[in-house]
This record gives sequence, structure tokens and C-alpha cells, in this order.
Amino acid sequence: MRVPSKTIQLDGKFVMHRGGYLASPNVAYETWGKLEGRGDNAVIIFTGLSPSAHAASSPENPSAGWWEDMIGSGLPLDTDRYFVICVNSLGSCFGSTGAADVNPETGGIYRTTYPVLTLEDVAEAGYEVVKALSLERVHTTIGCSMGGMTALAFCVRHPELGGNMLSISSSARALPFSIAIRSLQREMIVKDLKWDGGNYDLEDPPVIGQRLARKLGMMTYRSPREWEQRFGRERISMEMHSDEQFFGDFAVECYLENHANKFTGQFDANCYLYLSRASDLFDLAEHGGSLEAGFSKLNLDRSMVVGVETDLLFPIHQQRELANGLSNVVEDTELVELGCIKGHDSFLVDMDAFRPVIGRFLS
Amino acid sequence: MRVPSKTIQLDGKFVMHRGGYLASPNVAYETWGKLEGRGDNAVIIFTGLSPSAHAASSPENPSAGWWEDMIGSGLPLDTDRYFVICVNSLGSCFGSTGAADVNPETGGIYRTTYPVLTLEDVAEAGYEVVKALSLERVHTTIGCSMGGMTALAFCVRHPELGGNMLSISSSARALPFSIAIRSLQREMIVKDLKWDGGNYDLEDPPVIGQRLARKLGMMTYRSPREWEQRFGRERISMEMHSDEQFFGDFAVECYLENHANKFTGQFDANCYLYLSRASDLFDLAEHGGSLEAGFSKLNLDRSMVVGVETDLLFPIHQQRELANGLSNVVEDTELVELGCIKGHDSFLVDMDAFRPVIGRFLS
Repeated sequence: MRVPSKTIQLDGKFVMHRGGYLASPNVAYETWGKLEGRGDNAVIIFTGLSPSAHAASSPENPSAGWWEDMIGSGLPLDTDRYFVICVNSLGSCFGSTGAADVNPETGGIYRTTYPVLTLEDVAEAGYEVVKALSLERVHTTIGCSMGGMTALAFCVRHPELGGNMLSISSSARALPFSIAIRSLQREMIVKDLKWDGGNYDLEDPPVIGQRLARKLGMMTYRSPREWEQRFGRERISMEMHSDEQFFGDFAVECYLENHANKFTGQFDANCYLYLSRASDLFDLAEHGGSLEAGFSKLNLDRSMVVGVETDLLFPIHQQRELANGLSNVVEDTELVELGCIKGHDSFLVDMDAFRPVIGRFLS
Repeated sequence: MRVPSKTIQLDGKFVMHRGGYLASPNVAYETWGKLEGRGDNAVIIFTGLSPSAHAASSPENPSAGWWEDMIGSGLPLDTDRYFVICVNSLGSCFGSTGAADVNPETGGIYRTTYPVLTLEDVAEAGYEVVKALSLERVHTTIGCSMGGMTALAFCVRHPELGGNMLSISSSARALPFSIAIRSLQREMIVKDLKWDGGNYDLEDPPVIGQRLARKLGMMTYRSPREWEQRFGRERISMEMHSDEQFFGDFAVECYLENHANKFTGQFDANCYLYLSRASDLFDLAEHGGSLEAGFSKLNLDRSMVVGVETDLLFPIHQQRELANGLSNVVEDTELVELGCIKGHDSFLVDMDAFRPVIGRFLS
């Protein structure tokens, strides 16, 4: 996953939204297609919690990206027409400076000395990329999952860029069920003795806590209905634990175990803690004192909100709340409620449902 | 919680459904009201995973029970009219023999040498109470949550007892989402180093894993909608962890922390593992090869299925499946779908919604 992205290094102190600063941090990004004018055809993507900037393959990196079927010639994010930018979130561990990186002022790894991270900071790091590319305007800002909240922060703080906004399976702020899920995931990690107050051995990280957190993640990324159709009460013989009597009979248990195995070692534990907490902290209402005030700061030509009925993490009523708020300030606003059964992750795995909708918004 | 219940000790070997046996196990129960005939007015209750047999106060034990507002003179389970029995589940740690008890054949605590537990075993232990009370008939069998599946096992295996069945927030079998939740709860416990293969120090049990499991439990026992109304994004200052930057701002996090604190030390970890797994394993379809065959073994006069729309653990479509199956074999079957917002736990906390429904069935 540690792919070579383009990177800019910021000059001097990058002051954080809730205090503190980063000394000359890096921001990683990738681009596809050819820029026209000062951003007339620029599409900027803010990602969910875990992806890198490698959203699609490119001559420099031919491996498949996390949105490979969405970005390219003839695809909804048509690289014959658009200049597509994907930014690796500040605080992440795929090129942008995060808690796993060295603080140049101390020579040590940031770990828990990294300042409180917010999605406003992630958005500002994206804005630094916009500046570095000399853009004066953005055609469309896209945000998926956590990235949808980052996109809101970005558009609220930079109305001068104008353009359109596309929010996918996101919300205007986190609600208590999602906060509780993420809080418990973080607790699983910090209660792993190997986390050691954030000072874990990088070769021996708190894998047990990370695996538990990943499994809970999968439960909220997919949907009960999908698993019912896919697994039912199917049994599989698999040695999951030394204590077989309590585990491993059911196909769904093996599925989660395999997913945890695949994910292990891919994401730094401290970076995860910071980004997870940032997702809890975001609230559009903090931009002006109320949701309405926050929405009123937007300067968009068009907006679209796409959500999925089976999403547990960003439920469909939050899509409606977001679309309602947008429609009060952006005349051309559309809400699309998709009946996909694969839950929150549908935008990554149910391309047949998402491609036509996103293609229509960008056509 | 370790209340003095009535206890019977079974003679000789109690053979378990999936093999193995318990030597002369105990089964704890409590009763309220006065028995008429050979069970003409007997109501037997099978509980969820964690309650004891102390469903209501009594002269012997005046402390409030877990269903205090449901059982008593003039209440839906009217003790002026009914002889109410509540059985502590076999495998539990409140009087019936479980993994925390001593195996009389070895003199050591069972721990993980306890045989695989199924809800069929829990039902048979309940039947031993029925025999000990010389009942030839049961007026109504009631099961809540896991206890609803136990009640199905009981009624399928003892059609000679006849009577009525009331299933509350339960199902005919567990589906993959619920299995995944419980499997992850178990994994949290066994991955706590203090669990030690089940051989933990009883004075120093795997509390970290148990607390994590309890928090995940609370998320599935209540509902996102309730928490949204109750907590929203309310903040509370609370020192939850040494690493405050990742926790404790939000009221919902403090609520979960307080619940975990209350629960700590109340339930034996190994007993929890056995009962949790038993919930996954139950499938009415194993009684005859299909759900239909299982239902056809019932011999009931009336049945009622009560479920809650916001239940995540035993979702409403499972209530419909259960009621459909019952209606094919029990002419007088009623499905009641309640709009309570407190999720799976509603039968414990939303008495105003449940009392009239249960009262009607028993009137």
C-alpha cells in the first residue's frame, strides 16, 4: 500500500484547527488527466479513513487503485475530460504527515505528541495541494465516507473555489451510534498492552487490538441483509483460535477472520486513532453555530448527496438531513437513495449502482 | 446478584445435547404465586443470556428482580392467578451449574472442560424443574431474547406439556450479523491475556475483555435512534482513559463507560462464552431438518411473537419469520410489532409498551 504518490512539503508551521502545529508537513496526492485553465476541469477527491491517494492506476503506478472502476477514460470520473486529484488525508500513513512520521523539530516519531487532528486540518492540507497546483477554481469536490465531511469543511472554508459538491455515504456530523462504534474500536487498540501509550515497537504493533477493531469495522461497513443472503448459517471448518469450541463454525466468522488477516499491518495504529477521532469531532454546526449557519457558508453551483439504505455508519436519515440542508442554499441539489444491500461499503463494491449516478452528476 | 434461589440437584449424569455430561448438576429457579392442579396455571420463563432466576421480588428475597414491573399481584404475570417459575439457565453463574462451578468428579472448576452448551440443554434443565414440581402441563412458556430460543427448544421437545408460547424479541435461529457480534465479543474476552485459556484467577478475571464485550453488547441492546434523541452530540467531561485525546468527550462514551463499570465482576467470563456460543448454535431447523419440520413438532394452543422495530440483534424480520412459522401450526398466533425506540432491551425498559401486550396474552 505504500505507493509512491506526488508529495508537496509545506513551508514553515502548519497551524492545526484545535491548536498546535506541524513543522513543514508533507501532503501526498495523485492526479489523473490534464488540467485545463485554472481548475475549470479539476475534480478533487477526499477519501474515507483508510485509503491512500492511489484511487486509480496510472503510468507511474499501474497497480489498481481503490476506485479503479470509477476513474479513467470513459468512466464517470472521465480522465479524458477531467483533471482528477485525490488527496491522502493529513494524519494518515500513506505519504501525508501523520503520527507515524518523524517530527523534524525533535527527530522522534510524533506518536501521541501529534496534535489533535480534525477534518478541517485534512481539508486545509487538501487546499495546500490546490494552491500548489495554482488552481483558482474547482469543478467538483467529492468526498466519500469520512471524506464527505472533509469535503464539507473544504467547501465551507473555501467558498471562493465555487463549483459542485458530491457527498457519498457521509453526513454533516457524526451521531452517537457511529461515535460509540469508533470509540470502542479505539479502545480495543489502546487496551492492547502492545500499544504501550502509543510507544509500540513498529515491528510489533498492537495487532490484536487492531484486528478486533477491523472486525467491528467490517460489521458496520457491510450490512446484516447482505450477510444473511451471503452466509446464512453456513458452516466452514477453520482453525481460528486455540479455543475452537467458542469460534469458527460459521462462514461469517471465517470471513471476518480473513478480512482481519488481510488488513493486518496495513495501517499504523496511532494514525488510525487520530483519524477515527477526527471523524467523531466533525460537526458542520461548529462553522457558524448551527447546521443552517454552516450550510449558508457554502458557495456551490450544484450538489448531490448519495447514500445507501443499508448503511449502518452513515444512515439514510443523515443523507436526508445533509440533502435538506444543502437544498436550502444550493438550488440544484439532488438526493439519491440507493437500495444496495452492501451497506456503507457499497460505494467501493457496488459499482453498477454507483457509476450511473456519479456519471450523471459529472456529465 | 448472587441471590438465594431454590435449587434442585439432578441425580446422576445429565447428558448434554452435543455430547459429554454434567455430574449431578444444580438447576436454580424461583417461583411466585400458588400452583393449581398439575400445572394448569403454571407460567415458565426462560431468560436472556445474563439474568438470574430472580425475575421479581419475593418474601424470601425482597430485592427488585429483572422483570419486577411485569410479575406480581395485578401485573401482567398476575401472581394472584398464575404460578410463575423463572429458571436460571444451565451454564450460567447464578445457581445453575456452569463453567465457574466445581466438577464433583474432579474437584476442580469446570472452566473450559465444561461440555459444549446448547439451548436444548438449557431447556432440558428447565424441564427438570417442571418434573421436580410434578407438573404435567404448562399454561404458558415465555422466553425473552436468548430465552425465546430456549422456549422453542423446550416446547419442541416437550409437546406433551401443551399450553401457550410467548416469544419476546427472539427468533427461530441466529443470523450472521448477530453471530458476528457475539463471536467478536467472545474474541475480546479470549484475547485478553488474563483469560489465560480459561484458567484466569477468579479474583483477577479478564475484565478488560469483558468490558469491551459489554460495550459492544450495549450497542446492540439499544438503538441508534434512542441514542440520537438521548445524547445527540452532547459533551461531558470525564476521565475515561489515560489517553484523553482519543476518548470521553461525548456523552454516549461516558454512558457506555458507566454501564461497563456497573457490569464488571457480575458475570463469569467462561460462563458468558458458553452461553454466547449456545445462542449462535441454536437453529430450530435442526429439529427435523427444516424450520417447517421444527415448527410442526410443536403442540401449542396459542402463540404470540412480540418484537421491536429498532432491535438490531433480533431484527423485526426475524419476528415475522417466527410468527409465520408458528401460524402454520398454531391456529391462534399473533405477531405484535412494537415501535419502541430502545431496541432489543425494550422488553426490560419500556414496560409501558410491553405490559398491555403481555397482559392481553395472559388475560
